[in-house]
Amino acid sequence: MEYGGGGDDARDGTRWIVLVVRVPAEPSRHRVAVWRELRKTGALSLGQGVWAVPDVPLFADGIGRVLELTERAGGEAVSLAATGRGSQDGRRLRAMFTAARSADWAEFMADCGKFETELAKEIRIAKFTLAELEEEEQSLERLRRWHRDLTARDVFGAPEAAEAGERLKVCVAACEDYAERVFTALHQVPEQRMPEEGRREPGEESGR
Amino acid sequence: MEYGGGGDDARDGTRWIVLVVRVPAEPSRHRVAVWRELRKTGALSLGQGVWAVPDVPLFADGIGRVLELTERAGGEAVSLAATGRGSQDGRRLRAMFTAARSADWAEFMADCGKFETELAKEIRIAKFTLAELEEEEQSLERLRRWHRDLTARDVFGAPEAAEAGERLKVCVAACEDYAERVFTALHQVPEQRMPEEGRREPGEESGR
Repeated sequence: MEYGGGGDDARDGTRWIVLVVRVPAEPSRHRVAVWRELRKTGALSLGQGVWAVPDVPLFADGIGRVLELTERAGGEAVSLAATGRGSQDGRRLRAMFTAARSADWAEFMADCGKFETELAKEIRIAKFTLAELEEEEQSLERLRRWHRDLTARDVFGAPEAAEAGERLKVCVAACEDYAERVFTALHQVPEQRMPEEGRREPGEESGR
Repeated sequence: MEYGGGGDDARDGTRWIVLVVRVPAEPSRHRVAVWRELRKTGALSLGQGVWAVPDVPLFADGIGRVLELTERAGGEAVSLAATGRGSQDGRRLRAMFTAARSADWAEFMADCGKFETELAKEIRIAKFTLAELEEEEQSLERLRRWHRDLTARDVFGAPEAAEAGERLKVCVAACEDYAERVFTALHQVPEQRMPEEGRREPGEESGR
């Protein structure tokens, strides 16, 4: 789990699967489907039509789907078992794979930021409804699943992983805070509410 | 040496070197130099910047030069030891490599054709000089070296190899025939030559 590990280990033991995928250009939806599956799996693009993943059980299903889609598209895939020839080669390939994970994490954290902004807006405009809460909780659930998937595929541990974990925690706390506000708003008894409402928002009835 | 061998051997034992080569886009001459060396070596292009050769001693020097050129260009190469994960994968990669060799052989045979045409022309216009013979022999020597290089890199034996060998023999025979004609022309003693020349080519002196 060491990122860009030291040069002490003379031989890098990481085993990789290298996939060479050739899918007919037409119809393009087949190519797109194969490409999507490879992206979804977290495969590292080495060049057009050549991909690599660490040879660990996590990627087995994804690779299986890629091979199936390729075959169904009338394409041809070559699946190779590979290791770095020198320790430097292994390190470089790990660094390339981990750079792809860093890009994933950056995307994830950008979405965390969007989620926090969204919650802040709902609080600012005092939109405290169960429907809105459900929507925000679905967004948070999506972030949680995404975090779990990225953690799983971040085989060598990208440096951004820790920060991303913190960002998710911030999102969870922000969502809990919003939920409390929604419940507080929904639980206000009319006796407490009327005078205040009357003072601050005089217009709703008379405005018509 | 069996081409596209049967499915009986459950596991394909061919070992490959897969090279992932990244060279800065500018200046482009570095990229071109690396690409040329890979082509010259006979590496199979798997995708942009990804190449494969069978892991046999023949390719060691070429791969070494590619790595050196890449480093000198400020690029980065990852060198992987790879084998097909299934026997089908090995067969497919061998077939891809051999298809590249078939293309080599087609190019070689096209040049054999050009050589034969050239010789036929020299004979038709009776250009029987030592200078021309030397030139033709250099062309033949180039075809011989090319044939030797292609034979060496045709690790699995492309189906065109036999025909290419026959074509080279035809070129050798044609060049020997031309050489004989040149020597015959150059050895003609004036006594024998004058009357004949007088009859067939009356113009050279009087034409002035």
